[in-house]
Amino acid sequence: MRERVFLVMNELTKLLKVEFPVIQAPMAGGVTTSQLVAAVSNCGGLGMIGAGYLTPTQMRDQIKEIKQLTSKPFGVNLFIPNEYAVSSDLIDKAISSLQPFHQQLNTDAEQRHIQKSEALYKNFDEQLQVVLDEEVPICSFTFGLPSIEVIDILKKAKITLIGTATSVKEALLNESSGMDIVTVQGCEAGGHRGAFSDDGEGGLIGLMSLIPQVVDRLQIPVIAAGGIMDSRGVKASLCLGAKGVQMGTAFLTCKESGAHSLHKDAILHSSEEDIILTRAFSGKWARGIKNTFTTEMDRDGVFIADFPVQNNLTKGIRKEASIQNNRNYMSLWSGQNPRMAKQQKVEDLMKEVTTVFE
Amino acid sequence: MRERVFLVMNELTKLLKVEFPVIQAPMAGGVTTSQLVAAVSNCGGLGMIGAGYLTPTQMRDQIKEIKQLTSKPFGVNLFIPNEYAVSSDLIDKAISSLQPFHQQLNTDAEQRHIQKSEALYKNFDEQLQVVLDEEVPICSFTFGLPSIEVIDILKKAKITLIGTATSVKEALLNESSGMDIVTVQGCEAGGHRGAFSDDGEGGLIGLMSLIPQVVDRLQIPVIAAGGIMDSRGVKASLCLGAKGVQMGTAFLTCKESGAHSLHKDAILHSSEEDIILTRAFSGKWARGIKNTFTTEMDRDGVFIADFPVQNNLTKGIRKEASIQNNRNYMSLWSGQNPRMAKQQKVEDLMKEVTTVFE
Repeated sequence: MRERVFLVMNELTKLLKVEFPVIQAPMAGGVTTSQLVAAVSNCGGLGMIGAGYLTPTQMRDQIKEIKQLTSKPFGVNLFIPNEYAVSSDLIDKAISSLQPFHQQLNTDAEQRHIQKSEALYKNFDEQLQVVLDEEVPICSFTFGLPSIEVIDILKKAKITLIGTATSVKEALLNESSGMDIVTVQGCEAGGHRGAFSDDGEGGLIGLMSLIPQVVDRLQIPVIAAGGIMDSRGVKASLCLGAKGVQMGTAFLTCKESGAHSLHKDAILHSSEEDIILTRAFSGKWARGIKNTFTTEMDRDGVFIADFPVQNNLTKGIRKEASIQNNRNYMSLWSGQNPRMAKQQKVEDLMKEVTTVFE
Repeated sequence: MRERVFLVMNELTKLLKVEFPVIQAPMAGGVTTSQLVAAVSNCGGLGMIGAGYLTPTQMRDQIKEIKQLTSKPFGVNLFIPNEYAVSSDLIDKAISSLQPFHQQLNTDAEQRHIQKSEALYKNFDEQLQVVLDEEVPICSFTFGLPSIEVIDILKKAKITLIGTATSVKEALLNESSGMDIVTVQGCEAGGHRGAFSDDGEGGLIGLMSLIPQVVDRLQIPVIAAGGIMDSRGVKASLCLGAKGVQMGTAFLTCKESGAHSLHKDAILHSSEEDIILTRAFSGKWARGIKNTFTTEMDRDGVFIADFPVQNNLTKGIRKEASIQNNRNYMSLWSGQNPRMAKQQKVEDLMKEVTTVFE
């Protein structure tokens, strides 16, 4: 056991064809710049594009750009389209809840316009086609599992598939679907809960409990995600039975990340008491730093639409807040240990975490 | 670093005068029998009496009994009395919420009688006197910190003091109060949240995040608690910077534990999906297995009184459910990984977890 902890080569690094089993979480919303993804891959880890909200064209352009910056493997993450019910009544209620924020930010009428929720989702098949066309070697999924047909096509194209799970149940569903690898997301993780089999919080199981329960039941390699910020977390995850780690917040505050400077600053100056779970921004549970928007939206009686409706309805607010440099209305995703975040280069972060394998 | 992980002797074992830095969680409510406590201490760990609900006389009797069973150090855990507001209106509302359960269990009138909440608390000073009289070497605290005067008296008596924290903030308060050691309770932990500085859930931070954030800021040794079930969890906790571990659920299902057989069975046959947080039994947030009582009490609009009022009001229900062997109304505390629980002897559990130090 002692030796296994410190081994670089394992089933996971073999499948991913990377030097170190360290994956940069595919954070959507502009965080995963080509510079960030390429820097991680060039350091021997796995850079990942958070492509959930990208159009096929944006995806293709970024993939091509990254290929110019690295010859190492990198991956793409896609959101699985979920069924959702929506009516004009519910949209009206959600818009009404958001009205005060539009006023405070002086958002113009055009941005108040409701975008069709389907717009985000019709692209999934086209996104998959880009992955195939560009021969991206690794594709991961959040919010569910692709269909058998999709899995079959991707496997025939020799693409390595990574699923996301927040419980043993979801991990088993990932394995039986044919995923090659599963990322288990602990309650510690920042951003959206990847849960797809329950109310969306995913039981909020800590990695100390989740990793060993999952590895005891699965044959495929497990990646641990949530609250891992340095070599201590990497070692601990490997001790618990994971074959590698996925780190989000730690990469988000790196110089190469595309997160808004106010978002980085917010993490760098927060403590665990500032971290909350909220549905306010997207309609799905996500972890981040509380601000005026989350505090006011999470009050009793405030209506929040389901994902992706709410996500589209808050887009104008988030965009305008970002332009106005107003952190009170931005989504400031963060895991449970902002106190350990550093403003550093990817190279320095990778150097520290990979001391585990020396 | 590598060597530190596997060292038996550290600041914690020196302070506790034990062979292994493995503490049996002081579970209240009859779980920590003298047999359990003594077996853990005899195996080189630290057995602890969960004395929160015991009378001074019960405490003294148990301490004397344990001294017959082991010559090794053991400890006592006490609940810090909390301020609470209560009115006959609120008690009436809480009683009314509980009425259907009394009917279902056919609980007799006497058990329906409301015990004075103060009854639980007036004993605290007397409990402390027992600790001093019996020269118990280690005393830990939950739900807050003792007064400066109390800490001073215990320190003069050379008693080693352990506090409980669920956040960095609470850990810092423990250190500055004069605690010799602090137990950090991750979101994974079963039973009551030890939080005392916020809404009582204590932020629900996973150990992967909580341990390193705390050890980076404290000088006193840190014990990790929550979801640790075997040597993997022990190793991981030490990697993250803890000097030892406290295990609850793993000891609860041991043969020597006094937990009701239905409680043990419930844990042994549960999965992570059965685990919830509830205020239904005591008025304080606690983690356990869901059943009829928690499901019905956690519905919107059901009034639950604050601790310790609710705890006293549900005493008759819990007692009667236990007599009737009806698990639907018992408090089935459990951490987040019941899948790893085993029915085994303390000796076998200790043998497995202490392989870390070989």
